[in-house]
Amino acid sequence: MKHLLSIADLDRAGIEELLDLSASFREVTQRDIPKVPALRGKVVVSLFYEDSTRTRISFETAAKRLSCDVMGFSVSSSSVKKGESLRDTVQTIEAMGIDAVVMRHSAAGAPNRVATWIDASVINAGDGCHEHPTQALLDLLTLRRHLGSSLDGARIAIVGDILHSRVARSDALAFAALGADVTLVAPPTLLPSSLAGWPVSVSHDLDELIPDLDVIYLLRIQRERQNEALFPSLREYTARYGLTVERAGRLRKDALVMHPGPMNRGVEIAAEVAEGPASVITEQVTNGVAVRMAVLYRLLGSGASVGAPPLPSASGRSERPSGEGATIG
Amino acid sequence: MKHLLSIADLDRAGIEELLDLSASFREVTQRDIPKVPALRGKVVVSLFYEDSTRTRISFETAAKRLSCDVMGFSVSSSSVKKGESLRDTVQTIEAMGIDAVVMRHSAAGAPNRVATWIDASVINAGDGCHEHPTQALLDLLTLRRHLGSSLDGARIAIVGDILHSRVARSDALAFAALGADVTLVAPPTLLPSSLAGWPVSVSHDLDELIPDLDVIYLLRIQRERQNEALFPSLREYTARYGLTVERAGRLRKDALVMHPGPMNRGVEIAAEVAEGPASVITEQVTNGVAVRMAVLYRLLGSGASVGAPPLPSASGRSERPSGEGATIG
Amino acid sequence: MKHLLSIADLDRAGIEELLDLSASFREVTQRDIPKVPALRGKVVVSLFYEDSTRTRISFETAAKRLSCDVMGFSVSSSSVKKGESLRDTVQTIEAMGIDAVVMRHSAAGAPNRVATWIDASVINAGDGCHEHPTQALLDLLTLRRHLGSSLDGARIAIVGDILHSRVARSDALAFAALGADVTLVAPPTLLPSSLAGWPVSVSHDLDELIPDLDVIYLLRIQRERQNEALFPSLREYTARYGLTVERAGRLRKDALVMHPGPMNRGVEIAAEVAEGPASVITEQVTNGVAVRMAVLYRLLGSGASVGAPPLPSASGRSERPSGEGATIG
Repeated sequence: MKHLLSIADLDRAGIEELLDLSASFREVTQRDIPKVPALRGKVVVSLFYEDSTRTRISFETAAKRLSCDVMGFSVSSSSVKKGESLRDTVQTIEAMGIDAVVMRHSAAGAPNRVATWIDASVINAGDGCHEHPTQALLDLLTLRRHLGSSLDGARIAIVGDILHSRVARSDALAFAALGADVTLVAPPTLLPSSLAGWPVSVSHDLDELIPDLDVIYLLRIQRERQNEALFPSLREYTARYGLTVERAGRLRKDALVMHPGPMNRGVEIAAEVAEGPASVITEQVTNGVAVRMAVLYRLLGSGASVGAPPLPSASGRSERPSGEGATIG
Repeated sequence: MKHLLSIADLDRAGIEELLDLSASFREVTQRDIPKVPALRGKVVVSLFYEDSTRTRISFETAAKRLSCDVMGFSVSSSSVKKGESLRDTVQTIEAMGIDAVVMRHSAAGAPNRVATWIDASVINAGDGCHEHPTQALLDLLTLRRHLGSSLDGARIAIVGDILHSRVARSDALAFAALGADVTLVAPPTLLPSSLAGWPVSVSHDLDELIPDLDVIYLLRIQRERQNEALFPSLREYTARYGLTVERAGRLRKDALVMHPGPMNRGVEIAAEVAEGPASVITEQVTNGVAVRMAVLYRLLGSGASVGAPPLPSASGRSERPSGEGATIG
Repeated sequence: MKHLLSIADLDRAGIEELLDLSASFREVTQRDIPKVPALRGKVVVSLFYEDSTRTRISFETAAKRLSCDVMGFSVSSSSVKKGESLRDTVQTIEAMGIDAVVMRHSAAGAPNRVATWIDASVINAGDGCHEHPTQALLDLLTLRRHLGSSLDGARIAIVGDILHSRVARSDALAFAALGADVTLVAPPTLLPSSLAGWPVSVSHDLDELIPDLDVIYLLRIQRERQNEALFPSLREYTARYGLTVERAGRLRKDALVMHPGPMNRGVEIAAEVAEGPASVITEQVTNGVAVRMAVLYRLLGSGASVGAPPLPSASGRSERPSGEGATIG
């Protein structure tokens, strides 16, 4: 495994291996000194062609907890403005000895193309309306912690703007890969014209589904979409597809409420629900750091660690940035 | 002590304890390798809703000298632009496992509100016209190094735009808390309408005060205020309230000249005075790093260090980023 | 040696010493953990008044590989906007205990002036149309790896916009200092009015020179110059001065093709040539990190290392961030 471009590239075993590793790293992040020297000397560049402080900070925190050196590549101040091609940009970065590029881009497939040009690892941190694989993994880690290691038969609704959502695609693939029964819920204008290849059902009636759901996953409504006349108004959207207090009251008692953030409180989710006991939204964020540590470790961990324990033991010896410890942390 | 929001929250003993700690860290910053592993693995985010490279670099240098991992959260490129609330922003940051938020905001009281929402430590790096507590502490450290550990009876004038200055408020409170006799000097238009709660005298006549002062503290005149007609012109401001060469010549020989920076040379202070022997302006900047190390250490230092020496000894053993050393540096 | 402001400040021996050191660091960058603790605790600030992600990332990677703490000073969000002078800005940075300033500025000579104001080391990362010394050093390192340690008699053409190029000036001086025979090739409108002090020949006829060259160094054509009517059109420029596939075919078989990047493929260099076997453009980028490590180490390495081996041995003991190892890595 050299890149992480798409959930579609992983089979169930591959996903589960990453989740097991993530669970170990989640334990690391709870320690007094939540840092391991596993990737000491590795350099990670975050290359964000679209703003996303949330995702960028999560990746950078993960990289620093693994003792990587991290650099941000601010595209607005980059050679890109001088007309340099994406290819020259990433090949230049690689020539400096960078080990991994964490990349967000507005064009679907951009990380895949970059991966054909360079030897460094490429991690897709969201490409257009295509995929956002680490979001799917952190959502899975969150689900596993509540539902157990298998999602077989779990009923999950993903609600909202499926059409423009890379999260919806990655999550649908990932949830289904682990056995869940996924339903997309949206007005017809917010669904892709074809769902070929999506292992899902579709519904336009959230109220009908609500009582049977194990998990309801709300997508962010982008207010700027209103101008595209894809739905009549935010108020009407909320009335039919928002997780209002009333609607949340008809969820099963142990159902989970998820959202990738940032939320529009009062639109796709009521503030009271976002902060209520069914919500695992904050935990999703926490799990994001652990999942990104696992991905970075999986891609950049040295061959020397094969056969060795993947992680330092939980004992007090975790901090040992000496030569011999560096290979396995 | 979990947050540092306001000088008003600290009593004299609390301030003095922080200053003693700052003095120890100032000594650390003079070492050959001015870095200690005291906060290894702690993550600090600087969250600046207003630009201030000066303060941000000072905090980040302090955090790095304590071996923290530091991340900048550029608000212009953040989820804030997508309509995310301040509350969601900081709760998301906290959920990633961040230990402290260093925050500057244009709204007075914003850091106090954030402190009610999250468990991470909040450090106020300037909120509107309210407070800038680390500036006051670094000014006190500078004064102590020249005037001795008590400021009892020291005559200090704070001169300039009191109305819009968080520095003025924090400094007035801090200087008075340590026993100084503080006079605010400004045209009536640049004074708050009420000074209730300010332990100060007021004067409109700098020339009368000059010969008796131990310390003169000049505030920055914000050129953009001219449009508000708060004073007739920069030239007239300088004539009445600027520390000109002539006026500086009437200071006592051992009087100190201070300024929080950045300076408008030729407006509130003459260039020759800023660089003259009475000026401790550069030393204020140096002390800022030590004070911010002390604040971070005080807020984030682990419980394990209670009873242990607060700082590594000055011997060659200061650099020992091993597991057992991490608790006390 | 306290600053690196200009290639003109170095004699042949000084250049060669830096190149030898760079060669050692290049070897470090190839290691499994390409990081040494040589400059642990040193703080480097990159102060870029002009955007250049390429150069900034190269310097920051170099600094991090030496275990420096690195901070970026984004000028657009700095006190500069509040009217602070360059002098106050850099003196403030220095007062925080910063050890080196890596500086890019649009004004020729700005780093030289800064060096007179502060005690910290100043590294010129490009000043106006004046100099870019680390670019020259990385180009020399690249040449030495292919042509051997002396450039005596090597025939090198530097082709393009000499008038606006700090790279051209630094390279011409550096190549000549090591014995090369340098020819500047450009239309008269892109040459300085005087070449006094440039140890070079001049030609307007690239085709005549091509068969005899050991090295052809293409400069970037800045598209925005077109408006200044310095050459008729990009197409005509390419026809006379571009390294087209046809022209590259008439180079000697062992000739080298160089470019400082970012490239305008199809303008000053054909894409096929840039990626062809004669191109060492990617290697230039790689060598840039090693050269910048050498410069930082030379300027900031402690006196304690004099007489000691300049670099850790290539054995497994390279990672030893303990107190005593910190002086020499």
